Amino acid sequence: MDPEKFREELGLIHSCVKKVLSRIDEKETTEFIHSISSSRRMFLSGQGRSGFIARCFAMRLMHLGFSSYVVGETITPGIGEKDLLIVCSCSGRKSLTVELVRQARQSGAGVFALTASRDSPLARLAHHLILFPLVSQKGASGEPLGSLFEQSLFLYLEGIALFLMGEMGISEEDMLRRHTNLE
Amino acid sequence: MDPEKFREELGLIHSCVKKVLSRIDEKETTEFIHSISSSRRMFLSGQGRSGFIARCFAMRLMHLGFSSYVVGETITPGIGEKDLLIVCSCSGRKSLTVELVRQARQSGAGVFALTASRDSPLARLAHHLILFPLVSQKGASGEPLGSLFEQSLFLYLEGIALFLMGEMGISEEDMLRRHTNLE
Amino acid sequence: MDPEKFREELGLIHSCVKKVLSRIDEKETTEFIHSISSSRRMFLSGQGRSGFIARCFAMRLMHLGFSSYVVGETITPGIGEKDLLIVCSCSGRKSLTVELVRQARQSGAGVFALTASRDSPLARLAHHLILFPLVSQKGASGEPLGSLFEQSLFLYLEGIALFLMGEMGISEEDMLRRHTNLE
Amino acid sequence: MDPEKFREELGLIHSCVKKVLSRIDEKETTEFIHSISSSRRMFLSGQGRSGFIARCFAMRLMHLGFSSYVVGETITPGIGEKDLLIVCSCSGRKSLTVELVRQARQSGAGVFALTASRDSPLARLAHHLILFPLVSQKGASGEPLGSLFEQSLFLYLEGIALFLMGEMGISEEDMLRRHTNLE
Repeated sequence: MDPEKFREELGLIHSCVKKVLSRIDEKETTEFIHSISSSRRMFLSGQGRSGFIARCFAMRLMHLGFSSYVVGETITPGIGEKDLLIVCSCSGRKSLTVELVRQARQSGAGVFALTASRDSPLARLAHHLILFPLVSQKGASGEPLGSLFEQSLFLYLEGIALFLMGEMGISEEDMLRRHTNLE
Repeated sequence: MDPEKFREELGLIHSCVKKVLSRIDEKETTEFIHSISSSRRMFLSGQGRSGFIARCFAMRLMHLGFSSYVVGETITPGIGEKDLLIVCSCSGRKSLTVELVRQARQSGAGVFALTASRDSPLARLAHHLILFPLVSQKGASGEPLGSLFEQSLFLYLEGIALFLMGEMGISEEDMLRRHTNLE
Repeated sequence: MDPEKFREELGLIHSCVKKVLSRIDEKETTEFIHSISSSRRMFLSGQGRSGFIARCFAMRLMHLGFSSYVVGETITPGIGEKDLLIVCSCSGRKSLTVELVRQARQSGAGVFALTASRDSPLARLAHHLILFPLVSQKGASGEPLGSLFEQSLFLYLEGIALFLMGEMGISEEDMLRRHTNLE
Repeated sequence: MDPEKFREELGLIHSCVKKVLSRIDEKETTEFIHSISSSRRMFLSGQGRSGFIARCFAMRLMHLGFSSYVVGETITPGIGEKDLLIVCSCSGRKSLTVELVRQARQSGAGVFALTASRDSPLARLAHHLILFPLVSQKGASGEPLGSLFEQSLFLYLEGIALFLMGEMGISEEDMLRRHTNLE
């Protein structure tokens, strides 16, 4: 292995993520924080790797004291009014995702989409969205299949969790008390 | 395929399950119903196929209005006093299972084991147990790897759910209201 | 608790399941066994509790030496020609399920539906089906939300696994060798 | 919300991750790449959020053409010789994790630990490790509960996947062909 090349790849990933994060609209972020704080319960959803990132965030929301659920897990209840569906999808075009959003809207829930495409069925159906403006990766990292979206999504949601922790005056001890003790 | 042979296999499974269910101690069942009704929250756990059956029951508990969680799922909180860990394990000897029970006890939770072995680390550690007395399958269905336990476990827990539904006067409509509407 | 009442509920579940199983068409079962044996890979799918039962079967297929996957799990590859999607759905009407079947067909895969409704979008889209003729539960167990389907589905698939084990001359030791040893 | 403060938090996360990544030992990375390339099959494991990141990597390994599995998922087979268990754990002290590693070693598998603690039971039991030298977060982001480990872990594994893609001459089209088409 060429360590120099690996270091370079890592650097490219890191700087691409930085660019994407710097381009996210601050008004959208303000709206997102507000929706989280004012919703009764949150339902996180995403396919594949976006779904794993969504679950990382759902777990942190629980640690912070929110009522959060993951769509498709065992004890997730029905969604309804005052609830918020948070959908993570790079393309915003997967038909299962779009169908889910339709069902959530029919049940009276709000929908927040985190996506890289403003011009997608998901973006049109959602009440609000955070747009991740992916930088062109030409000559850059050349990452496959939505990787840059998933990386930016994770760090962005980590920032949101950290921000909420500060705003709400929650300590690490508070979070640890809610953390699973069966592991 | 020989349809006659398939019908025979199915009949053997069915009658073996019936025998196991008829041998479960009624006092243990009474204690189980009581523990469910009086616990603050229930945490369901099981490895492999026993774990899938445990999740079927966790979902029904949620439909019935109980606070139920599955160990290992995203938003499962810390377990503590007044909580009940329900562990499903045929052998009662898997070390991850035994370790989990130890942790739950340290946190002050109650532990109910559903198992086929009275003489196992799990049975010794649990506060209460439902023993599934597996019938000898010699000359009978010859099912592999705990199948009879898992089959009996599922039907038994279905009976428990149905019984609770009746006792608590819960209608199918009540349950449907809690059922996920994102599918 | 009234033990007599519990025993009665359990008996009703047990006899309803028996009736459903006895009414399943043998030709459909023959076709199912044949499809399993002749497919390159099998993809199991189901929502909610039907999904947990589907996973129990997927695990047994793996123990038996088949290439099986669960739709939605991490390392499930793309489906294609010579592959078989096995869908478990009581109503056959959930839109996510129907959408999944459409995608599988577009990719050239075969689709086998296990369902309680012959007159549903799923039944119309599938290449083959096993119909579970649910008995009327009037005056009987009064079970909620597809319970009888899920119970019958589980025992039926257990019968299929046991039958395959016999036909293929697979021993419990063979299965144990493929069983996870990380638990 | 104060957008300035959010931007600052995000910047801190980003620069802490950068520092951690720059401190990872290149010889350990070379060893990791070599172990991945020379193992028969890989089994990914992690509790909680580390587990979700592990699954992101398991999925990419599958897209790249490797045989990868997630410990605890339905069709994960038994581990054995020539197989590699890759364990992600910040503290390296969770007893379920340590027990898992013991079982893998008994079965003859190799174990690679990705951890923030060189002085932990996990680090002592593993054959190899990637140490994530967490920077002190005093006066910095003050993130809770292993967040910095999980963030660094994700970007590091993304770098590994990208590096492997280049080394092996795999195109995005190759990966897309293996990507699930049921979503």
